[in-house]
Amino acid sequence: MSQLREFLSKNVWAAWGLFLFTAGVVLVFGLLASSILERRIETKAAVRQFRPIAEMETDPSVWGQQFPRQYDRYLQTKDMDFASREGGNIEIDMLARDPRMVVLWAGYAFSRDYNQGRGHMYAIEDITKSLRTGIAQPMTCWACKSPEVLKMMKEKGTKEFYSGKWKDGLKDMVHAIGCLDCHDPQTMSLRLARPALKEALERQGQDAAKLNHQQMRSMVCAQCHVEYYFKGEGKELTFPWDKGMSVEEIENYYDQAQFKDWTHALSKAPMLKAQHPDYEIYKMGIHAQRGVACADCHMPYRREGGEKFTDHHIQSPLNNIANSCQVCHRESEATLQQNVFEHQDKIRELRHKAEDILVQAHVEAKTAWDVGATEEEMKDVLQLIRKAQWRWDFAAAGHGSSFHAPLEVLRILGHAIDLAHEARLELNGVLIKHAVTLPVSAPDISTKELAQRYIGLDMPLLENEKREFLKTLMIEEKK
Amino acid sequence: MSQLREFLSKNVWAAWGLFLFTAGVVLVFGLLASSILERRIETKAAVRQFRPIAEMETDPSVWGQQFPRQYDRYLQTKDMDFASREGGNIEIDMLARDPRMVVLWAGYAFSRDYNQGRGHMYAIEDITKSLRTGIAQPMTCWACKSPEVLKMMKEKGTKEFYSGKWKDGLKDMVHAIGCLDCHDPQTMSLRLARPALKEALERQGQDAAKLNHQQMRSMVCAQCHVEYYFKGEGKELTFPWDKGMSVEEIENYYDQAQFKDWTHALSKAPMLKAQHPDYEIYKMGIHAQRGVACADCHMPYRREGGEKFTDHHIQSPLNNIANSCQVCHRESEATLQQNVFEHQDKIRELRHKAEDILVQAHVEAKTAWDVGATEEEMKDVLQLIRKAQWRWDFAAAGHGSSFHAPLEVLRILGHAIDLAHEARLELNGVLIKHAVTLPVSAPDISTKELAQRYIGLDMPLLENEKREFLKTLMIEEKK
Repeated sequence: MSQLREFLSKNVWAAWGLFLFTAGVVLVFGLLASSILERRIETKAAVRQFRPIAEMETDPSVWGQQFPRQYDRYLQTKDMDFASREGGNIEIDMLARDPRMVVLWAGYAFSRDYNQGRGHMYAIEDITKSLRTGIAQPMTCWACKSPEVLKMMKEKGTKEFYSGKWKDGLKDMVHAIGCLDCHDPQTMSLRLARPALKEALERQGQDAAKLNHQQMRSMVCAQCHVEYYFKGEGKELTFPWDKGMSVEEIENYYDQAQFKDWTHALSKAPMLKAQHPDYEIYKMGIHAQRGVACADCHMPYRREGGEKFTDHHIQSPLNNIANSCQVCHRESEATLQQNVFEHQDKIRELRHKAEDILVQAHVEAKTAWDVGATEEEMKDVLQLIRKAQWRWDFAAAGHGSSFHAPLEVLRILGHAIDLAHEARLELNGVLIKHAVTLPVSAPDISTKELAQRYIGLDMPLLENEKREFLKTLMIEEKK
Repeated sequence: MSQLREFLSKNVWAAWGLFLFTAGVVLVFGLLASSILERRIETKAAVRQFRPIAEMETDPSVWGQQFPRQYDRYLQTKDMDFASREGGNIEIDMLARDPRMVVLWAGYAFSRDYNQGRGHMYAIEDITKSLRTGIAQPMTCWACKSPEVLKMMKEKGTKEFYSGKWKDGLKDMVHAIGCLDCHDPQTMSLRLARPALKEALERQGQDAAKLNHQQMRSMVCAQCHVEYYFKGEGKELTFPWDKGMSVEEIENYYDQAQFKDWTHALSKAPMLKAQHPDYEIYKMGIHAQRGVACADCHMPYRREGGEKFTDHHIQSPLNNIANSCQVCHRESEATLQQNVFEHQDKIRELRHKAEDILVQAHVEAKTAWDVGATEEEMKDVLQLIRKAQWRWDFAAAGHGSSFHAPLEVLRILGHAIDLAHEARLELNGVLIKHAVTLPVSAPDISTKELAQRYIGLDMPLLENEKREFLKTLMIEEKK
């Protein structure tokens, strides 16, 4: 040190140089530290220091003022340009892709129109334009489509909401599924805003208030992505979970309630329509068993700027393998995608097999009625058709079931194939008794149009009715 | 330092103390290092510095002199006290557990006697005492049971070996499946000692010599744990893989070769018997797709003393979850076991369903023949029964298929159920044409004994014949 002191006292310019260099280094470190602290503050501010939002604030853009990143990603649910095997197709006509379903749903509105589900942002648009909705549907159909539902339930009462007409709700539903549907506006915590799930849990002896955060990351989804029905005259949204959540236990519940969704137009079987038992099937798969929540894969963490936040672009993990699957799985994107596709292919194979047999069963049952079969003769046949199609639908109706619990789905489809064939064996006896020459010839249902014609749908008429219906509604609103 | 030197020169006892202490520390470190080196040497010595073993050394105890740890564990394949869900049962009578199989195999020796496979050490004992072997079986039945087979093939030639009689081999087979079956005695490398696998690979355009070490850790098992048949008059052991290894591709191969294992005693269908397509089904599962070899789970690494070696106690990984599954999976033993059991349960459900329908199809076909059905009327029925039962058997015959590729197994069983029902639908027509009142009543086959009586087996006679046969053989040997 004494030598350095001596050197500097002799070389004034070197002393100034060292002084300036040191000052520079300190400045750079200071800026860096400030930047790090700022990022931390940004992160914490967003999470902790928000201003509570109004109790019934249904407009996501208001929430978005305080949570701009979550809001921006939420808006992305409008993006349907899939990277999945479907290609960039924006809206898939499922009936055109598999016209057998037209016959399977004959007499039910799904035979008119059934598209693959789209992002949450389309919730109101899609239910409005669907040929499945019109003058007859109850208000309950809105239950999962918009946060305005919560406001209406609060104002009118839940029972009163359910007992209204769907068409009367159209003017009130402004925002598609949004922030208020899952978050408490005061605390930003996840919460179950709708009554049906809480009621179902209560009937099972569970307390919704005791669900922990990781459970809530699935349960907010289970408010809607479940099997449900509209119970009784009051059309109350009800989850049929009282006996359990397997396909057999839910069937048992419906059987005991002597419930049917509709009577099949061809076979006259008392049918059940599976909705989308996503949560039920997910619960039976390995990811749920390992504690992985819906949000872990469908809303994985995302980093932007200094902030790590839950990605509110809810979508298929196949569109986002890097952030969802690869957090745990070390295989390449291509490998992981291929694994999922292979599962889908195996399941689709049995699914289509079940459909073929079921179509034939409905057609043969129609033939039996046509030649004068009696209620007594057809009783067992109709029960077998109901059971078989319920299993097929439970396996087929969900979003991503072949990923969520592939083994359970194949088990269910195996039973669907068995029961549909049992129905045909019974039918054989009835047909022969009535002197029908076997085999009953299968109709040409190779396209959606042919299938809809076969079951007697006048599609131009239905489409026109829908157009007129919407026009009338809009005129009424203007008055 | 100078202060210490001064202190020591004044205190001689302290100097001596320090000297001895230092010497002690050095000694301890030296011993430690020596022990570590010794362990390393032990490990390396075992692997690298063995004396080559004679080319046709079939006695595992001779190999065991140089590889005592591997040999000790190999001897453990005698231990059948399973920790699995079967409890401590040592030999499970599969026909008693599921008497439907007696009917499914009517006319074939499996209907007499079929026990769950036991460890390699039992290979000779089990094939000898089985009611499936006797005067008629070809020498080919020995192909996978003993290293003496290799010696005989070398001495006689392979073709000549295959064309002999099983009973003539009994005196030559001394050692059960052992070291020579998988290892080169000169280099200790894994090698394919038997011709069938190499031939099958060659016909597929693959070169067995180019398989790498990790592949060989499965391929030595695939020498035997595969689907196979005895081709033509020469009874040559052949793997039916020329068109691929799926259940449909192998069926295609057999169909084209117009091959059948036997004609069913009840239905007269030209049947196929699946052997144990373990390797084929394993290849279709996720573990194979991730590069996990048979040995990784069935022969995981084990540590004894200083040596880390491949555990030659080949067994179900369920008996050894800590060393096999938990190397990769972080879940508890109980959880992993429960996951496997759940797969097994789902698969068993569809498997039993397929069996029920198949039994009924055989019984109804017998009824049709009894009332005078013609070959022409029965042609399609018999093909459907063949196809359905082939699928059921392919899914059911393997060891651990419900673990190796559960999705593929369920897919196959779904088709088995479908095809068996198709057979019954066809049969319905035939039966009605011949004025049979439907339904055809099902026989009581609730126990193995009842089922064997139903298909016309005189078990006391067969058991006596076997006893006499073995006695005669032993007398012949003594001469």
